[in-house]
Amino acid sequence: MLSSAGCSTRRSRLWKALPEPCDALILADPQHLIYFANYVQSPFVFRSADAGALLVLEPEKSTLVTDSMVQPFSERATVDEVVAPVWYNGKTSAPHRQGIRVGAAIDVLSRVPGTRIGIEPTSVPVAVVEALRAARPNLTLIDLDPIIRPLKRAKDPDEVALIKRSIQAGEAAQAAALAGVEPGMTELDVFLLVQNAAMKCLDEQVIVYGDFATGPRCATEKGGPPISRTIERGDLCLLDFSVVVHGYRGDFTNSFVVGAEPTARQREMFEACLSAIEAGEGQLRAGTPARAVDAAVRGRLASRGLAESFTSHSGHGLGLGHPEPPYFVPESTDTLVVGDVVALEPGLYIEGVGGMRFERNYLITAEGFETLSVHDLTITQPRR
Amino acid sequence: MLSSAGCSTRRSRLWKALPEPCDALILADPQHLIYFANYVQSPFVFRSADAGALLVLEPEKSTLVTDSMVQPFSERATVDEVVAPVWYNGKTSAPHRQGIRVGAAIDVLSRVPGTRIGIEPTSVPVAVVEALRAARPNLTLIDLDPIIRPLKRAKDPDEVALIKRSIQAGEAAQAAALAGVEPGMTELDVFLLVQNAAMKCLDEQVIVYGDFATGPRCATEKGGPPISRTIERGDLCLLDFSVVVHGYRGDFTNSFVVGAEPTARQREMFEACLSAIEAGEGQLRAGTPARAVDAAVRGRLASRGLAESFTSHSGHGLGLGHPEPPYFVPESTDTLVVGDVVALEPGLYIEGVGGMRFERNYLITAEGFETLSVHDLTITQPRR
Repeated sequence: MLSSAGCSTRRSRLWKALPEPCDALILADPQHLIYFANYVQSPFVFRSADAGALLVLEPEKSTLVTDSMVQPFSERATVDEVVAPVWYNGKTSAPHRQGIRVGAAIDVLSRVPGTRIGIEPTSVPVAVVEALRAARPNLTLIDLDPIIRPLKRAKDPDEVALIKRSIQAGEAAQAAALAGVEPGMTELDVFLLVQNAAMKCLDEQVIVYGDFATGPRCATEKGGPPISRTIERGDLCLLDFSVVVHGYRGDFTNSFVVGAEPTARQREMFEACLSAIEAGEGQLRAGTPARAVDAAVRGRLASRGLAESFTSHSGHGLGLGHPEPPYFVPESTDTLVVGDVVALEPGLYIEGVGGMRFERNYLITAEGFETLSVHDLTITQPRR
Repeated sequence: MLSSAGCSTRRSRLWKALPEPCDALILADPQHLIYFANYVQSPFVFRSADAGALLVLEPEKSTLVTDSMVQPFSERATVDEVVAPVWYNGKTSAPHRQGIRVGAAIDVLSRVPGTRIGIEPTSVPVAVVEALRAARPNLTLIDLDPIIRPLKRAKDPDEVALIKRSIQAGEAAQAAALAGVEPGMTELDVFLLVQNAAMKCLDEQVIVYGDFATGPRCATEKGGPPISRTIERGDLCLLDFSVVVHGYRGDFTNSFVVGAEPTARQREMFEACLSAIEAGEGQLRAGTPARAVDAAVRGRLASRGLAESFTSHSGHGLGLGHPEPPYFVPESTDTLVVGDVVALEPGLYIEGVGGMRFERNYLITAEGFETLSVHDLTITQPRR
């Protein structure tokens, strides 16, 4: 999980980044409840999926507002106070759950002085602001989105630690797939194999999401969630997935031929993708425009006459979001900064030959970059 | 998935239930996007988890507002129009995702006449209403929550069909656990066994959440998510889980002794729970106060001297929410109606002896009730 010191530092950074003083800040984006307060809900726990929370920040105090049912998560939040009224007590019929939470937030805010309030206008519920407006005719709302987004680019050490943990689980899952996928399995079987390996590695329940495509789907759809298609010997298997660990994720792909050797043309495509990754890595340093990274990847594939078969992006940033800045695309306006966590993921898709994608994750450092993911990029399964 | 006719009927029902005419309604609760428009996001698909949507209803038109990345879900929505601007085009850096969606909703609303707008004030983002207020000084907001909640009690046939599908997967998973749990497995192994069986049954990726507790935890914690605890022969295994199918879920429990016979005292507890379920079933008919159902369950356990070991509720309603009305608790204010989907789940928890819970799901019908779940309620694993 994120550290108390990390969350505290991020809250301080937010206050300092405000272009004008605010009396309080109200956050509701689930990513930001993690980022600033280590409040993470699990979809695997009773009565958690439909819960929510609000974070009320004052210059000297942070308050998480949620309800009593999500105590396992709110008790791990790193805030000064948790306000969590009882929604369901097991004795009387329960009222509207969101109403309880929003009412508690309004109550908390009624004790906060001032009229200049920073909010996330695209996620804070209207009831909260209507109550503020009713009590404070001079209310001024400040949009926090353009302030928070740039803050999130450079990852803090506790964020990188979670991404590394996600990557470790993803690598275990890629290894399990490379060793275990066989003709006769369905794509859903492959997903279950991958997901089970990731959860066993982490020893906890986590969401694993992504592309689990095989055979012609790799070229025609370039991915997609698993379907009941049965894998045949010689099919390509394209696995591009993320393991979400306390909100953070790595993202990496491998593509291999199931139970057979790739064709010469497939091997050429594979080698071109690896070479394109190498070309992208050559541009990975702080200060480089993201479009230069894309140009390097794209140029390497074009130099092999494969420009038209590369129809996806070269890569993107990663963290609480996926994709997030920097975007490795031709007209990217981003520039690499120290602390960026990024993925390079060139792919080639030729109907009748194959579709494949390969991906690595990196941390941009003061010296250049650190390669975060080390799973085998290979088009060939180990012989049994 | 929910049917087009079902969603359309529910939208008509909502318009008819309004206490005063409205020009438009704005919905944002994810449950209600499913209920009124069959818009269901999957957490297993790229770029879906952090997406969201808004539903704008006019008397003669329904519009879903989301973004282009969630097309697999928005194209299944049963609305008159989907407005889904491009958030990320793979060529340029992507802007704030929620801003794109909320901007599109404001745009849609700018073409809707009138000043009386029904909203969900605890989930509609404030930016939407601030834009409405700026353009319409006479804006009147009507809170839809007290109108929608009672509408959701009686389940429609397409809702019951999804709940039955969830129950079918849950039953397959309970059967797999009863047959497959062995000493030496961890609780997380049991979860994976259960989850894999549910997904294989449905042939799709679904969330499985709930309690996967073994040994002393069954009595001391009465459940909880799986931990890395290793199961020993003779441990109780308490499995209380739901499989979420397009937003809907059944909910059922079984508890059994792993690889051994229960003790005489454990068998007595088991028989008392089953007898309590039978007592609850005796009260399941439309018009009965939910507290009478609770009293029957509670009374039956008390008659066996076990009142103090029954520390949970007798049951609850189910559907898009969990728990939802009716609540089978001592001071419940609910009354059973035709179309209620409910669970009875008495449990007994005695430290040093065992903790166990057993559960069935029912549909309240005009004639009485239909038992929806038929998994084995048994404290003993089949011999191998």
